[in-house]
Amino acid sequence: MTLQLRSLLKSTGDLEISLVDAPAAEPQADEVVVRVDATPINPSDLGLLLALADPTSFQAAGTPERPVALARVPEKVVPGLKARWDQSLPVGNEGAGTVVRAGSSPQAQALLGKAVAMAGGSMYAQERLIRADQCMVIPAGCMARDAASWYVNPMTALSMTETMRREGHTALVHTAAASNLGQMLNRICLKDGIGLVNIVRRAEQAELLKSQGAQHVINTSDADFMAQLTDALAETGATIAFDAIGGGKLPGQILTCMEAAINRKAQGYSRYGSEVHKQVYLYGNLDRMPTEIARNVGMAWGVAGWLLTPFLQRIGREDTQRLKQRVMDELTTTFKSGYTQEVTLAGALDPKAIATYGKAATGEKYLIRPNGV
Amino acid sequence: MTLQLRSLLKSTGDLEISLVDAPAAEPQADEVVVRVDATPINPSDLGLLLALADPTSFQAAGTPERPVALARVPEKVVPGLKARWDQSLPVGNEGAGTVVRAGSSPQAQALLGKAVAMAGGSMYAQERLIRADQCMVIPAGCMARDAASWYVNPMTALSMTETMRREGHTALVHTAAASNLGQMLNRICLKDGIGLVNIVRRAEQAELLKSQGAQHVINTSDADFMAQLTDALAETGATIAFDAIGGGKLPGQILTCMEAAINRKAQGYSRYGSEVHKQVYLYGNLDRMPTEIARNVGMAWGVAGWLLTPFLQRIGREDTQRLKQRVMDELTTTFKSGYTQEVTLAGALDPKAIATYGKAATGEKYLIRPNGV
Repeated sequence: MTLQLRSLLKSTGDLEISLVDAPAAEPQADEVVVRVDATPINPSDLGLLLALADPTSFQAAGTPERPVALARVPEKVVPGLKARWDQSLPVGNEGAGTVVRAGSSPQAQALLGKAVAMAGGSMYAQERLIRADQCMVIPAGCMARDAASWYVNPMTALSMTETMRREGHTALVHTAAASNLGQMLNRICLKDGIGLVNIVRRAEQAELLKSQGAQHVINTSDADFMAQLTDALAETGATIAFDAIGGGKLPGQILTCMEAAINRKAQGYSRYGSEVHKQVYLYGNLDRMPTEIARNVGMAWGVAGWLLTPFLQRIGREDTQRLKQRVMDELTTTFKSGYTQEVTLAGALDPKAIATYGKAATGEKYLIRPNGV
Repeated sequence: MTLQLRSLLKSTGDLEISLVDAPAAEPQADEVVVRVDATPINPSDLGLLLALADPTSFQAAGTPERPVALARVPEKVVPGLKARWDQSLPVGNEGAGTVVRAGSSPQAQALLGKAVAMAGGSMYAQERLIRADQCMVIPAGCMARDAASWYVNPMTALSMTETMRREGHTALVHTAAASNLGQMLNRICLKDGIGLVNIVRRAEQAELLKSQGAQHVINTSDADFMAQLTDALAETGATIAFDAIGGGKLPGQILTCMEAAINRKAQGYSRYGSEVHKQVYLYGNLDRMPTEIARNVGMAWGVAGWLLTPFLQRIGREDTQRLKQRVMDELTTTFKSGYTQEVTLAGALDPKAIATYGKAATGEKYLIRPNGV
């Protein structure tokens, strides 16, 4: 038997996070079983884990070995989560570990005893059954800890520059740019010589990014931030942006400043605005207010939702594999992640831990060690 | 010498619409000169013609043969029009006429004496020099009057269904659907068997479209219009919309209802919303307020500006020609246009006429006859 973390939302609005005993899986020919050594708690795990419950509202129940964390989900959001009512759902987007059992295929057998990185859900568990061809072998010299966060942030950041190139842009804008993801994107752009305009909300975030070599950092708290942003856009030529915030005026302001930057070089009159396509992708939902686009952006613009998984499906298996391999090759440099706490599966259910990692604050990141710290 | 209509905005904010004498053009080998017999005043001509001046504020000047129309452009919009200051600009997006002189190439000579349709600006004139391969020969039995509005509305409406197919959708939504363009789109969709959800603002507009065979007409003035819209979207499966209004909440409301219609059939829980891509294209600017997108639309969505010319450039010459030929083939049926007034070039400068056509009201359309009515 192996332990799995589960999140269960009842139709009554009661949320129960618990550990269940699952039978040890036997791999099919092309499958392996991985002992999960390290798996992070990302902001993108919190929706499934906490079901929009207030992270500070959890109560402990159960026993020390089989703890349970209980909370009430706000009544107004319970109906919107109907599709998950009364289902005990596994959690955890990514992780790394050691292959302990392997199916009969040569590809599966070749992985036996190897350290591998994985993605695809159900990682908050002592063991994860997975197809052999979905495992990435961790380079010699790297620990499971180094590879645990190999997918969500690294592949998202790398896919942003990949999207930029595929859609014909040469530089990009990123908001909430001091996040772990933002710092990683800054390292990619510095390494690859890509112009990056970092947008942050506070002076200390700007300092952090500048200390890491960022050339263009705009603070939305500055009174003249629109003018600063337009200057940075004119200097870099950035015409695509990735926005983590989603709601409010910022996506529209970025388009407005892009159009103004382009029109500085415009020749002649065009009643439809510039012909250069300007694109903002919203990949996060930090602000749930409506997104507002002012109408001074011309006609050549787009705003759209953006998610990693559909993007990788569009570019196909071969290009996806190329991006994954680059992450493996630069695990401890470009794609390095840091953690503030390491906990067991039981430790992840401690109400005090939930209150801390549930804030999804930059610089505060938990790593689960399902088989002991 | 031939007469041309010109619009001149001075840096002082003074706008002068006048008629100028231009020397008769001599065609190069691959060019022809067309006597313009009929050219419409479209809403899309008004920006260039009136430079955002109040249509009811024009004063007559000049002589009866060379009239001038004068107005003041509002001070706050003059700086935004700097790129056109002090330039005497020709006007008129589309028209039809007779080839009166032709260059030496066989293609140009073959057009001599033929009735042709044209697009590309500078149509408010007695003669238009144009490349022979840009002329569409008008079918026998059609008048210049039938072909004058062959491009802007017909090609836009046809390009909407073409965009729908190319981007993988099977039905579409149109707002301001009782417009001349909207009625034309309704005829295309009825003929081609395409599901169309028409959105209007008033009951009489709904009646007009229903009298023309429209099956789905939603009135935004109805209290339950979101519920009605969701039903119509579920019935038609429409996941793309073309919106003429641009600003305000309607583009976002369409996305919200599309997501709700899709989720009626959803199986299982997805924290990112449906995987079906929902798209709204804004092709007009009837409302200059910011566009607002609520955040209950999942992640698979996009909003973007849309213009006919860049679309035709993207699809290329051959497909563009196919669309143009379909318009020619159905000039007096699917793509029929009506006019409420016919005027000379001088008549188009009459302040009373400007006050009428300047409103761009549905059902009120002027046709210019540059060589006499």
